[in-house]
Amino acid sequence: MSRVYIEDLHLHVGQPVTLRGWLYNKRSSGKIRFLVMRDGTGLVQGVMAKGTAPEEAFNDFDALTQESSFEMTGVVRQEKRAPGGYEMDVAGLKILMVAHEYPITPKEHGIDFLMDRRHLWLRSSRQHAILRVRHQVIRSIREFFDSRGFLLLDAPIFTPAACEGTSTLFETKYFDLGSAYLTQSGQLYGEAGAMAFGKVYVFGPTFRAEKSKTRRHLTEFWMVEPEVAFNDLNDNMDLAEEMLEHVVQSALKYRMPELETLGRNTAMLANVKRPLPRITYDEAVEILHKNGIAFEWGNDLGGTDETVVSQQFDRPVMVHRYPAQVKAFYMKRDPQNAKLALAVDVLAPEGYGEIIGGSQREDDLDALLGRIKEHNLPQEAFEWYLDLRRYGSVPHAGFGLGIERTVSWICGLDHLRETIPFPRMIYRLTP
Amino acid sequence: MSRVYIEDLHLHVGQPVTLRGWLYNKRSSGKIRFLVMRDGTGLVQGVMAKGTAPEEAFNDFDALTQESSFEMTGVVRQEKRAPGGYEMDVAGLKILMVAHEYPITPKEHGIDFLMDRRHLWLRSSRQHAILRVRHQVIRSIREFFDSRGFLLLDAPIFTPAACEGTSTLFETKYFDLGSAYLTQSGQLYGEAGAMAFGKVYVFGPTFRAEKSKTRRHLTEFWMVEPEVAFNDLNDNMDLAEEMLEHVVQSALKYRMPELETLGRNTAMLANVKRPLPRITYDEAVEILHKNGIAFEWGNDLGGTDETVVSQQFDRPVMVHRYPAQVKAFYMKRDPQNAKLALAVDVLAPEGYGEIIGGSQREDDLDALLGRIKEHNLPQEAFEWYLDLRRYGSVPHAGFGLGIERTVSWICGLDHLRETIPFPRMIYRLTP
Repeated sequence: MSRVYIEDLHLHVGQPVTLRGWLYNKRSSGKIRFLVMRDGTGLVQGVMAKGTAPEEAFNDFDALTQESSFEMTGVVRQEKRAPGGYEMDVAGLKILMVAHEYPITPKEHGIDFLMDRRHLWLRSSRQHAILRVRHQVIRSIREFFDSRGFLLLDAPIFTPAACEGTSTLFETKYFDLGSAYLTQSGQLYGEAGAMAFGKVYVFGPTFRAEKSKTRRHLTEFWMVEPEVAFNDLNDNMDLAEEMLEHVVQSALKYRMPELETLGRNTAMLANVKRPLPRITYDEAVEILHKNGIAFEWGNDLGGTDETVVSQQFDRPVMVHRYPAQVKAFYMKRDPQNAKLALAVDVLAPEGYGEIIGGSQREDDLDALLGRIKEHNLPQEAFEWYLDLRRYGSVPHAGFGLGIERTVSWICGLDHLRETIPFPRMIYRLTP
Repeated sequence: MSRVYIEDLHLHVGQPVTLRGWLYNKRSSGKIRFLVMRDGTGLVQGVMAKGTAPEEAFNDFDALTQESSFEMTGVVRQEKRAPGGYEMDVAGLKILMVAHEYPITPKEHGIDFLMDRRHLWLRSSRQHAILRVRHQVIRSIREFFDSRGFLLLDAPIFTPAACEGTSTLFETKYFDLGSAYLTQSGQLYGEAGAMAFGKVYVFGPTFRAEKSKTRRHLTEFWMVEPEVAFNDLNDNMDLAEEMLEHVVQSALKYRMPELETLGRNTAMLANVKRPLPRITYDEAVEILHKNGIAFEWGNDLGGTDETVVSQQFDRPVMVHRYPAQVKAFYMKRDPQNAKLALAVDVLAPEGYGEIIGGSQREDDLDALLGRIKEHNLPQEAFEWYLDLRRYGSVPHAGFGLGIERTVSWICGLDHLRETIPFPRMIYRLTP
């Protein structure tokens, strides 16, 4: 008999199959024994009745503890009331290993207890649901860019100079070359890629040594960063909203059972369709003032500000043209108003805050040189980046989407720590 | 007029379009001017004849230097002799920026000169070809696992303990928790994932601080590592050969023009079809002896040994059941012969050496504990990994495929440095 996974049982109704997995649950009811097996792809209920199932299977049933590994053979039946929708009349059980007493029980555990056992906690249905959504998000992002002719450009993790101060950088000794720093963003490399390939996306882990203990910070997180030659700020917003629609609608299409497991109300997610509202920073400030918030023009939007602004809309909102003083040196200024940067942030609804940050980039050599001086950055470290403005500079734009923040929003979680298999935070480096 | 990319010109034959890109090349022949534009998606030839094309376009033509950015408008024609297969009768030119004198010229440059200008070198047709093959390799690997129900499990980059000595590990200070080390392999985490999800793949960058200056070493490289519960060594080899066939055949199917650009003889690649030959380590030793090599049983195969063995076959060869003493502590011993590990290496033909390393894992708690003691490893650091043998242990197996080595082999390159956008080597951390 060839291997069958629980997710494929619909192809085997009425047939005898052997399944291999772990005990998720068991119970007795009079002369009947029920056990639920998980194999990583789903759950199935095995049923044994006294007099029908073999006698030794009953002994094995008694011996099975939670998470014990075993094989189970029998004929598959559809049964809507069973977990997973299928049942098996157990004709044979074979124990592979009786598990030691499993530490994670249905009772409430503290978050540290669970995080210390993250390698086991991953077996729970909640973690399955979240990580399957994560996989879908990553898969649909890659499909989006691959199908549009973007080249995947893996930017380096080791970067040479600490361009903007070392306070939030992880540093490592690099042979005789001094120190290397772990990347915080592949954007500058993405720009070189856009000049070579027209349209690229960087997709990899990025690192921030921030001493924040908030629910929205990991030290190691994944980011996708598309960059497109000849795109201006509007094209950039078009691309961002098209991608966001694709990602959210794919999650709803392929991962609804998981979202149900998580108890996610998906009404707001269903709204994520183009066009997304676009407002200027100035309009965002007006909204804040109308809502009685004493916000001063020129500051960056804080978490509460973002929530108040996003609450005015039934889907993510794009806020563009921020004061240049709160944005990065490489952003192009608005030709209509030199105080503004051609930046855009996308704010998720329901208080999830910024999930995308992007901009049109400064493509004028002299303007960029001036900006580097203004910010007291070492020009030497940026010579290669300046080369992109020396040899056929063109308008271009891009953005970054944080994977964990996006997964957290789609799943409706209040902390990033469950959105990645083994989270790394200021106080957590294990397992 | 909406944006048109050169790769889509076949959809616009007979129509006027505007293209945006960079000057790749130009030449004059009597009253005719030819220029080749690249836009990152392809090349197209623009043609201007005196008397037909506008006069100012001729002035612009003269001003254009290599890599200058410009727009070009005109009607598209099919022309098999032109680079890219299409020509445009230029009705208008618009210069965006005249490039400074471009440092990379058709003459021969040294490798350091080119690597120092990697951000510009990426614009060449050779680098385009290699990185498009890289993208295809990564894409087809992900498709392979996604379509087979594997969960993508992003393993952590920061790992806590230096389990096997720190000599080849990159270290970074991690807040108050001491040091973190950059991952060399996600395998152990993949095993936790396999016990939770049945079948997973880890795909991300990995790091080795090896002081090797060989053409086969990068300090930062990408690896895919599938891991499957209930797979034994044979299942593992089945999976490896199926994946390898898919990856190579996809490259041949979708990236033949790029392989032609690289001058790759694809005859040996076309052979990469199942079944791949499987020989034991003992048989490999016999081959070496027959070829006059004084190889001692018990040693690991060196580069030359691998080449001699692989030369006996017309496609990749799988060598399995190595002496346990040269393999990692976590590999399961052969029940038929305790001196052997249930390991498998896949050797690429044409001298490319090992591209896959894998094994069935030790699933017995006591055997694994003994192995950790034998190797003088700190048991404490492995407690979480041992938990996978305490709570429902099952046979399982997996392997790792190095992306850069695979791309190098498929492209027929003699060094890994061109297989990744910005390579990192012991003496190279820039740009």
